[in-house]
Amino acid sequence: MDAEKNESVNIYDIAEMANVSIATVSRVVNGSDKVSPATRRKVEEIIKEVGYKPNAFAKGLGLNTMHTVGILTPNVADAFMAAAVYYLEQEMRGYGYDCLLSCSGFQPEGKRNQLDLLLSKHVDALVLVGSTYAGSGKDSKETDYIREAAKKVPVFLINGSVRGRNVYVTVCDDTKAVRSVTESLIACGCKDILFMTDSRSYSANKKRSGYEEAMQKTGLPLRQELIRFVRNDIGFVREYLHREKPVFDAVVATEDGIAIGVLKYAADLGIRVPEELQIVGYNDSRMALACEPELSSIDNGLKMMCIETVRRLMDILQGRRADKKTVVPCQIIERGTTRFLKR
Amino acid sequence: MDAEKNESVNIYDIAEMANVSIATVSRVVNGSDKVSPATRRKVEEIIKEVGYKPNAFAKGLGLNTMHTVGILTPNVADAFMAAAVYYLEQEMRGYGYDCLLSCSGFQPEGKRNQLDLLLSKHVDALVLVGSTYAGSGKDSKETDYIREAAKKVPVFLINGSVRGRNVYVTVCDDTKAVRSVTESLIACGCKDILFMTDSRSYSANKKRSGYEEAMQKTGLPLRQELIRFVRNDIGFVREYLHREKPVFDAVVATEDGIAIGVLKYAADLGIRVPEELQIVGYNDSRMALACEPELSSIDNGLKMMCIETVRRLMDILQGRRADKKTVVPCQIIERGTTRFLKR
Repeated sequence: MDAEKNESVNIYDIAEMANVSIATVSRVVNGSDKVSPATRRKVEEIIKEVGYKPNAFAKGLGLNTMHTVGILTPNVADAFMAAAVYYLEQEMRGYGYDCLLSCSGFQPEGKRNQLDLLLSKHVDALVLVGSTYAGSGKDSKETDYIREAAKKVPVFLINGSVRGRNVYVTVCDDTKAVRSVTESLIACGCKDILFMTDSRSYSANKKRSGYEEAMQKTGLPLRQELIRFVRNDIGFVREYLHREKPVFDAVVATEDGIAIGVLKYAADLGIRVPEELQIVGYNDSRMALACEPELSSIDNGLKMMCIETVRRLMDILQGRRADKKTVVPCQIIERGTTRFLKR
Repeated sequence: MDAEKNESVNIYDIAEMANVSIATVSRVVNGSDKVSPATRRKVEEIIKEVGYKPNAFAKGLGLNTMHTVGILTPNVADAFMAAAVYYLEQEMRGYGYDCLLSCSGFQPEGKRNQLDLLLSKHVDALVLVGSTYAGSGKDSKETDYIREAAKKVPVFLINGSVRGRNVYVTVCDDTKAVRSVTESLIACGCKDILFMTDSRSYSANKKRSGYEEAMQKTGLPLRQELIRFVRNDIGFVREYLHREKPVFDAVVATEDGIAIGVLKYAADLGIRVPEELQIVGYNDSRMALACEPELSSIDNGLKMMCIETVRRLMDILQGRRADKKTVVPCQIIERGTTRFLKR
């Protein structure tokens, strides 16, 4: 079997150029008689024209693939990423696919190396979990490694947005969720709403935009001293607030761990939650149920993002078309630390 | 390169029979001149005698391996297992090894399939995380699939014990930890100590033994109504206790989630913790810091188990000998829900 000679052209490109599905290209390559003579001629002409040599994957497409999808995540000890891997595994198993996982860390070199490792194991597609893979959004070179991988197999991103051929994206509407929560807090009469985050990632920036949009929309001034960068660590946040003593009557945190640190600080000072202070976390983790009162939290729609990703991944692997970008809504789970929905 | 003809004999067997390291066998197979003529003769005789055909792995040992270790875990969404994967990754990376992870679920078929998947990706060794892989301990057939895999690559178990050639085990001393905690509670004057668990696994059984040993040692009767099987779910445990109304003055739980359910129940009834009720969780998870008061919890020595596993795995891959079984101590982290160490 020939190696892919013209590496810059793959089966997805041929399908796009011929305006047919990749299953059709696969049938032509494999000599199936389920293709009309006209379509066959068109596909064969394009293949000849661009010098495309089908690789083993294209030849075996849908017949004899490895039925294995590679999952890349920076750190599986993070509850969000671990849950994503869990949902992805479950979904893919339903389609008869196995998963291989690798952890890349947050550095460019690690990302590239682990992506290559997965490709070397002959996976049929890649799923990248976490907004770190989308880079800062400032320099498109940061994400060249993803477009490079997408020449070999389709690449799906969860919670990060990258443009490229054969690259598919599923994100949640973080901006809208934070804007909505912040507006609700303002409607409750909150004036000094802290926005606390541990990250400057694509996803964290979307959340921050939501906070800023709510301020603009309601005509409140955007005060930089209300935006705080902290560590996602209960003890750290608690001590940070004792040290910094900011004035605030509400908190929107980009992680549940940060929000619970605020809750602990409030308990230390006898500040009543939610009467005197309202707190909203993010990710609706198990910790949100462990604290007292239970934490209101934004459910980032992770499960739905994973289901949507796998559904489209299977569409692509089975030769159908799929949306390049899908946006999944977030949901606000109100519990004991807020009173904007309850009455 | 020949496939391994006599599949029941591998490089580790030859090393054991010749009483040399696998590195020495590898050197003989690869024609290295760093072996004494006498040793060479001995190894070659055994190889001939048993009809051993070195496989690609043995031929390339230490020179040209994939430098990839397969990790199998039932469910990576479990915080304990996710943390184990994280520690293992970090340690192996320090030795220049990559990891591939697969999730098997808890059913025998899934375990076998995912183990085969990892082997098909040419991993140099396997690490199985979680006591589920050791079965119930009642029927050795349950673990035949592990000994089968160990004919191909060395297999390391974390938190589960299985006997077999080329199988290595790292466990923590759960029995001792629970015995010690239970004895401390008895010394505090507790009489009705609930033991709450969600599992009948190897690890859960060890914990239960510790509880029972403490009762025996202190001459207290072993009352079956004090041993409760529940779900590892805060809300479930809280409702369970409201429904069942057991009489108790202390709880030893095999999961932090169970212990926090007890804490919530106590808050509902105005029972003061730790004055009227002492509670100990297990795994020292992030949740232990989220609740109020913070939860005393048994640290299962997970990080040390992972470090010990990787250290011995590298010994084996680099042709040295390693202990078949290592026992790591647990540590009791006392926080606000107990008062047996504090004064």
